[in-house]
Amino acid sequence: MKAHEPLRIGIAGLGTVGSGLLHLLAGHGEAIAEKCGRPIAIAGVCAKSREEPGAKLTGAPWFDSPAGLAVSADIDVFVELMGGDKGPALESVKAALGAGKHVVTANKALLAKHGAELAALAEENCVSLNFEAAVAGGIPIVKTLRESLLGNTVTRVYGILNGTSNYILTRMQREGLPFGEVLAEAQALGYAEADPTFDVDGQDAAHKLTLLAALAFGVRPNFDAVHLEGIRGITPADFQAADELGYRIKLLAVAAKKGGGIEARVSPTMMPKSSALASVDGVLNCVAVDGDFVGQIILVGPGAGSRPTASAVASDIIDIARGHMGPPFILPTAKLESQSRSQMQTHEGGYYIRLSVYDRPGAIAAIATRMAEQRISLESVVQKRDAPDLPGFGRPGQEGDPTPVVMITHRTREDQLRNALDSIVKDGHVQGVPQMIRIEAL
Amino acid sequence: MKAHEPLRIGIAGLGTVGSGLLHLLAGHGEAIAEKCGRPIAIAGVCAKSREEPGAKLTGAPWFDSPAGLAVSADIDVFVELMGGDKGPALESVKAALGAGKHVVTANKALLAKHGAELAALAEENCVSLNFEAAVAGGIPIVKTLRESLLGNTVTRVYGILNGTSNYILTRMQREGLPFGEVLAEAQALGYAEADPTFDVDGQDAAHKLTLLAALAFGVRPNFDAVHLEGIRGITPADFQAADELGYRIKLLAVAAKKGGGIEARVSPTMMPKSSALASVDGVLNCVAVDGDFVGQIILVGPGAGSRPTASAVASDIIDIARGHMGPPFILPTAKLESQSRSQMQTHEGGYYIRLSVYDRPGAIAAIATRMAEQRISLESVVQKRDAPDLPGFGRPGQEGDPTPVVMITHRTREDQLRNALDSIVKDGHVQGVPQMIRIEAL
Repeated sequence: MKAHEPLRIGIAGLGTVGSGLLHLLAGHGEAIAEKCGRPIAIAGVCAKSREEPGAKLTGAPWFDSPAGLAVSADIDVFVELMGGDKGPALESVKAALGAGKHVVTANKALLAKHGAELAALAEENCVSLNFEAAVAGGIPIVKTLRESLLGNTVTRVYGILNGTSNYILTRMQREGLPFGEVLAEAQALGYAEADPTFDVDGQDAAHKLTLLAALAFGVRPNFDAVHLEGIRGITPADFQAADELGYRIKLLAVAAKKGGGIEARVSPTMMPKSSALASVDGVLNCVAVDGDFVGQIILVGPGAGSRPTASAVASDIIDIARGHMGPPFILPTAKLESQSRSQMQTHEGGYYIRLSVYDRPGAIAAIATRMAEQRISLESVVQKRDAPDLPGFGRPGQEGDPTPVVMITHRTREDQLRNALDSIVKDGHVQGVPQMIRIEAL
Repeated sequence: MKAHEPLRIGIAGLGTVGSGLLHLLAGHGEAIAEKCGRPIAIAGVCAKSREEPGAKLTGAPWFDSPAGLAVSADIDVFVELMGGDKGPALESVKAALGAGKHVVTANKALLAKHGAELAALAEENCVSLNFEAAVAGGIPIVKTLRESLLGNTVTRVYGILNGTSNYILTRMQREGLPFGEVLAEAQALGYAEADPTFDVDGQDAAHKLTLLAALAFGVRPNFDAVHLEGIRGITPADFQAADELGYRIKLLAVAAKKGGGIEARVSPTMMPKSSALASVDGVLNCVAVDGDFVGQIILVGPGAGSRPTASAVASDIIDIARGHMGPPFILPTAKLESQSRSQMQTHEGGYYIRLSVYDRPGAIAAIATRMAEQRISLESVVQKRDAPDLPGFGRPGQEGDPTPVVMITHRTREDQLRNALDSIVKDGHVQGVPQMIRIEAL
């Protein structure tokens, strides 16, 4: 591969992102060649079927299997845009790296599970493994962590990393609609998959957070170390209470250095309306990084979609064309620390608790006692006898009927709070499962 | 310079940024060496005086002149942190590049005026000329434009690029105070220089915009092509009117492709309160980029200060240590187009006009006629007879006294609007100079 010869890429997967990349290279190929000092040539493609719309966008040589394309002597870079954390994606990426091909991928699931192994393989073979498109679509957060912030000790990285769930939460907040209704609407509009699990239960955000944590803290990617909680349990009553308290609810992904380890979690979180993240609405993503020298920087942009993701994939290819290389996770893989699932830590900002309390004498006192037993102090308790008939609140009415009670705690440990809520449920004073949402003063 | 040997840097200028860099390298030198695969060694320093606080932070070899340090056989990289667009900064940077040294600089004024010449010199000598710290402090916007967005045609880049003027405008908006009072306060707090010209008259933002436009559009940096307007003329009355209309006033720097050319301007601008930029307050900076594939990304962070700027300088040095190189303005200098001062163009969103109109029969009609002559249509006209006695509004009172009139135009050309306002002033219906602020729907 010489300096002015074309960089020959093979693209596996011609769905949304692959098609976007073909459009980008068709439209900007000449400009990119000027900027890189060499052209990017599509030397091979493969996809599920030659009948896919993406497959008809190019006349590049067709390969029947990703693994065949991955090791073809005709390519320098294998661009994996198929998805999936095992099977053809894993096999072909391994094959490509083993054959000394650079790899560019948008596959967050693959890297969250096999990132360290693949990075080691890339190092052995002196090739790049680039994945800007795997985190937050068009937002250049991978490069920012990999290159721009290397003079910093990063203490925290957090953000809104899943556009589908952010769209759903934004609609719920604005329209007062329940989760199920908004999800159905998002599915009809194509913003959510038929099986929305990955988006609304937090796995997708957790895959991305796994990669951000690895880059930020010099640890091996470990998806299993992320605490995970989705948005299915959030109700209009929670949005109403949050609004009254001056908060928004977002699915926040946060990884931070705490007590010698790293705490990584994806969970619905209340944050002040004035927070920069609170106004990131709809399908946008955003990532904030705290570094000891830079202070805080925040990047906002489209977290998904054909064209923004193709922009990120193109930047990874261009880096290879320009000869910009480095270990995938900044440090040589052997130097990455292992990351275990952290203990629950004290966290800043307390918790929001919503209970349906049977309105009987002594109920609130009993609940408060259970909290005190766990040394949890309460900032406020609001009993909403006159609450509207919102899903998530019990219907208010006669004495003995369940009444919504909203409590805000001072900062506490999550395990203590869970203990207290378990006792409260066992005492029989509340109906159903307590709602518990972390509050972060971001 | 071999792969695992130390990268030897010489630092000229040990003021705010230079001291920050010394602290950063002292604190994170080992971590950086691990990340780069090689250490960064400070092989020489020079500053105005050995008595400067910064000079006492290091025991590195002392050089009496920047030009001597620039060409020393002991250094690989010359780090210019002196400032100034001529004299020692220009001479030493030229000398360093000519001697085959890489250059890292935070000097926006120098590059806005001599960027193309210096870039050509860097190319001839096959060395880097890096300047992440020259634009928006700790925000990695130079790398984002230079590398992350190369798959895009950038259509617009804009932002809030001067923290001092943003601090002043934020205080004026929140406290209702006049410009002079807030400026004095900012000077007392050290946020503004004794001579605030560069900040409040827009030159500093224009230097940065010049560099952003060069990177975004592939043009030679041309400071003289930027239309420039500062914030001295903004009054509490303007903030009050903006607030009532749903706008904020920011010193906006914007460069956009328009009608085959590039329009670059720094000017006070009204933008909707809901805009992402409207909530960037105080000394923060922010930069937005519109690209045809990425859509829009926005970066927010500290635009100045010792530590954030040092973070950016360090990233430039680390890129050199890792062997990541490329032409300073993306394209080889010979391929950069020249950029002339653009004609005023039609712009989206109209203008805000505030006049002190002598309250006489026919005055408003005469003003409206002058607007109509220039084919400017008005979205709204508000005559504020009961306006409070705010600086910037004439005192309301008897017929014949000046009364504040606020007009919002539909989109128009600036030259037509200026013609209309000239005629209105000549007609003698208004007191003083009309206020005119662009409205951008960002």
